[in-house]
Amino acid sequence: MLKNEVNVGLIGLGTIGSGVYKLFKNSGQILNNKAGCKLKLTKICDIKSERFKKLKVHKSITTSNVNDIIENPEIDIVIELIGGLHPAYDFIMKAIKNKKHIVTANKAMLSKYWEKIIKAAEENNVWFFAEGAVGGGIPVIRALEEGLCANRIQQIIGILNGTTNYILTKMSKEGRNFSDVLREAQIKGFAEANPTLDIDGFDAMHKIVLLSNIAFSTIIDEKKVYVEGIKNIDSLDIKFAEELGYIMKLLAIAEKHNAGINVRVHPAFIPKDKLLASVNYENNAIFIKGDAVGETMFYGKGAGEMPTASAVLSDVIEITKNITAQIKKKPYFNYKKKPEILEMDELKFKYYIRFNVVDKAGVLAKISGILGKYDISIQSVIQKSRSFNDKVPVVFMTYEAKEKNFKKAIKEIDILPIIKEKTVFYRVLGD
Amino acid sequence: MLKNEVNVGLIGLGTIGSGVYKLFKNSGQILNNKAGCKLKLTKICDIKSERFKKLKVHKSITTSNVNDIIENPEIDIVIELIGGLHPAYDFIMKAIKNKKHIVTANKAMLSKYWEKIIKAAEENNVWFFAEGAVGGGIPVIRALEEGLCANRIQQIIGILNGTTNYILTKMSKEGRNFSDVLREAQIKGFAEANPTLDIDGFDAMHKIVLLSNIAFSTIIDEKKVYVEGIKNIDSLDIKFAEELGYIMKLLAIAEKHNAGINVRVHPAFIPKDKLLASVNYENNAIFIKGDAVGETMFYGKGAGEMPTASAVLSDVIEITKNITAQIKKKPYFNYKKKPEILEMDELKFKYYIRFNVVDKAGVLAKISGILGKYDISIQSVIQKSRSFNDKVPVVFMTYEAKEKNFKKAIKEIDILPIIKEKTVFYRVLGD
Repeated sequence: MLKNEVNVGLIGLGTIGSGVYKLFKNSGQILNNKAGCKLKLTKICDIKSERFKKLKVHKSITTSNVNDIIENPEIDIVIELIGGLHPAYDFIMKAIKNKKHIVTANKAMLSKYWEKIIKAAEENNVWFFAEGAVGGGIPVIRALEEGLCANRIQQIIGILNGTTNYILTKMSKEGRNFSDVLREAQIKGFAEANPTLDIDGFDAMHKIVLLSNIAFSTIIDEKKVYVEGIKNIDSLDIKFAEELGYIMKLLAIAEKHNAGINVRVHPAFIPKDKLLASVNYENNAIFIKGDAVGETMFYGKGAGEMPTASAVLSDVIEITKNITAQIKKKPYFNYKKKPEILEMDELKFKYYIRFNVVDKAGVLAKISGILGKYDISIQSVIQKSRSFNDKVPVVFMTYEAKEKNFKKAIKEIDILPIIKEKTVFYRVLGD
Repeated sequence: MLKNEVNVGLIGLGTIGSGVYKLFKNSGQILNNKAGCKLKLTKICDIKSERFKKLKVHKSITTSNVNDIIENPEIDIVIELIGGLHPAYDFIMKAIKNKKHIVTANKAMLSKYWEKIIKAAEENNVWFFAEGAVGGGIPVIRALEEGLCANRIQQIIGILNGTTNYILTKMSKEGRNFSDVLREAQIKGFAEANPTLDIDGFDAMHKIVLLSNIAFSTIIDEKKVYVEGIKNIDSLDIKFAEELGYIMKLLAIAEKHNAGINVRVHPAFIPKDKLLASVNYENNAIFIKGDAVGETMFYGKGAGEMPTASAVLSDVIEITKNITAQIKKKPYFNYKKKPEILEMDELKFKYYIRFNVVDKAGVLAKISGILGKYDISIQSVIQKSRSFNDKVPVVFMTYEAKEKNFKKAIKEIDILPIIKEKTVFYRVLGD
């Protein structure tokens, strides 16, 4: 039977949920036109009643009992926007079993429970969309699933976390240090009171795991992803980066090599003239390389009420078109067995290294000797004259070297008496 | 009946057609996996038999008679890649009447015959996709149709023509003049032997008309689009642009104002720190602003064999998914009546103006007087000391002024005896 009305239930009226409510309210006619039938926001669930008051939501569609949505036979599509692992995961699994189609933006949950959720969706023949989970309003999941579907994806490099990109941009443009900028970002609302998930790189990790699952039709285990955040970044290295023609960014990377897939999150130097280097403040961008299309990039606001709500509603409209067109089944989110994971130690990088050494003769020879022993060739050395206390920063740029060897070399160097402070290094990309 | 095989006919084995053939040959299994059934390239039509030889196409699937495809009852999807208005349009209309689904990358034809083609597709209940027509492999039509569908689109700014962007990038980076760079581009294959369609802005016009039709669900009349190309651009103005902090780009723009839609193509100054300003050489980018999502940008190779073939195949896969899912009808390419078109004369711009004046006192006062009379306020004046023969370039940057007034002022100034050469001006965007 062709439906003339599709009923939507919304769980969670936080920031993004409020955006979704506003879009329904202010752009209802547009949504109906695009969906090709009436889209009705039938029920909203939240346990904080003040959120309903703030938005003046009509009492008849509010509830604090999630079962009014996930067990409501009237509702076709459930939007989950409460975030976090539990009870979000439990609500979604229950809704799927009740044959509800699902839209979510919950990257933490998708990263952890991807396999279970897509299997459940497949078994219950429901649609499952998550465009809002990565890159806010940027339609990057759809690009991977549809626009670039004729490609073998070779590489994804994402600036996927707005908070850390905001902090690094400020540190870079204003020469300020990390904790100072973080404090300002918290006051301005660009960083959470507890910023761990962002600054330690885990939010970006959740997102790159999700993109990898889709791009490579696979299931990546979070535990196998190398994650390094930004909280130890010294503004001195950002300054040196710029003198050398680079910008420091926190990147989330997924690469397909012959031997396997590597997924990782870490700060890196990228050349100033690359488009990714110009992605500043809270903006996100995803660079995707495919065998046919070559290099592409998708840019936009990576978070926030309305951009993410735009992505959530695009999913709702897509599902609605499928429902009204009576699509029974569509290939989506294909997945194969777990992939070979290529460990960081097996990769090769160019490195920026800042040694903090005593200011005396023979130091460079000593360091170069150890690097040479581990097959690490030096491209250039910059000795900076400024001496802090009696230590001097000496910057090396290397040619490509194996991560495993590199770490061994640094370990050996760091115990030398000429080394005054733990050596700092960053991987250099895209030359 | 659920189909296990979908038959594709390809008309035109030129550059993009060859890319499509290669993808079928080298990525067949990937395409089948994504489409969810077997995709078969059943027939290829071209009148140049040497093209078949070059690619070693098996004789059984070649033909020089287009009816072997468009009247072939076996064929489900027709890919048209011969370009140009006729006979491409006639082939497509005939194929639609024979209930073939259509994939094309023919922007000239779509720009001119949009209304006729989408009406025919609707009447005959066939799918009609054209991702390859704009931005090569960049999935921008899908972004407008799906990813950003919950938005009211407010503005599109595209670098949509690779040839002109290549020429402007070279002029800018190497300080060379137009005809010199064009000649090099022709030798390197980045510009056609007859480059008119590109350098006069018509290729970009076709593409922005198509994007406007989709973004605003309407039908734009090509004749109402203001088009200005790049062949008269003097490297001197590119140099001045840079001194002032701008980059010169050929932009294709569509904007929704309260009074109507404005669609135009012209060179413009954009601030150096905008992401679009960093889109160089043959690359394309499309900046899209929506009411919910804010500012987004999509970047990639705008032309070429494999990128465009990637877009064409993504359309074929999408249609195949729809066929196998037995979708009867899906809202796509909605259109309303022809829109109010806002003429250039009604718009307001900031301008860069280069007057070429005699080198004597009182000249600036005279010019400023006329600009003032037409309500054009001056932001800054730069008098360059270098004097060519006895004329001096004097550069004005204005505040926002109405195009109609501005043109009147320039006309009045250009007949003054102090003016030695036609005044040059460019619109300044994005401040």
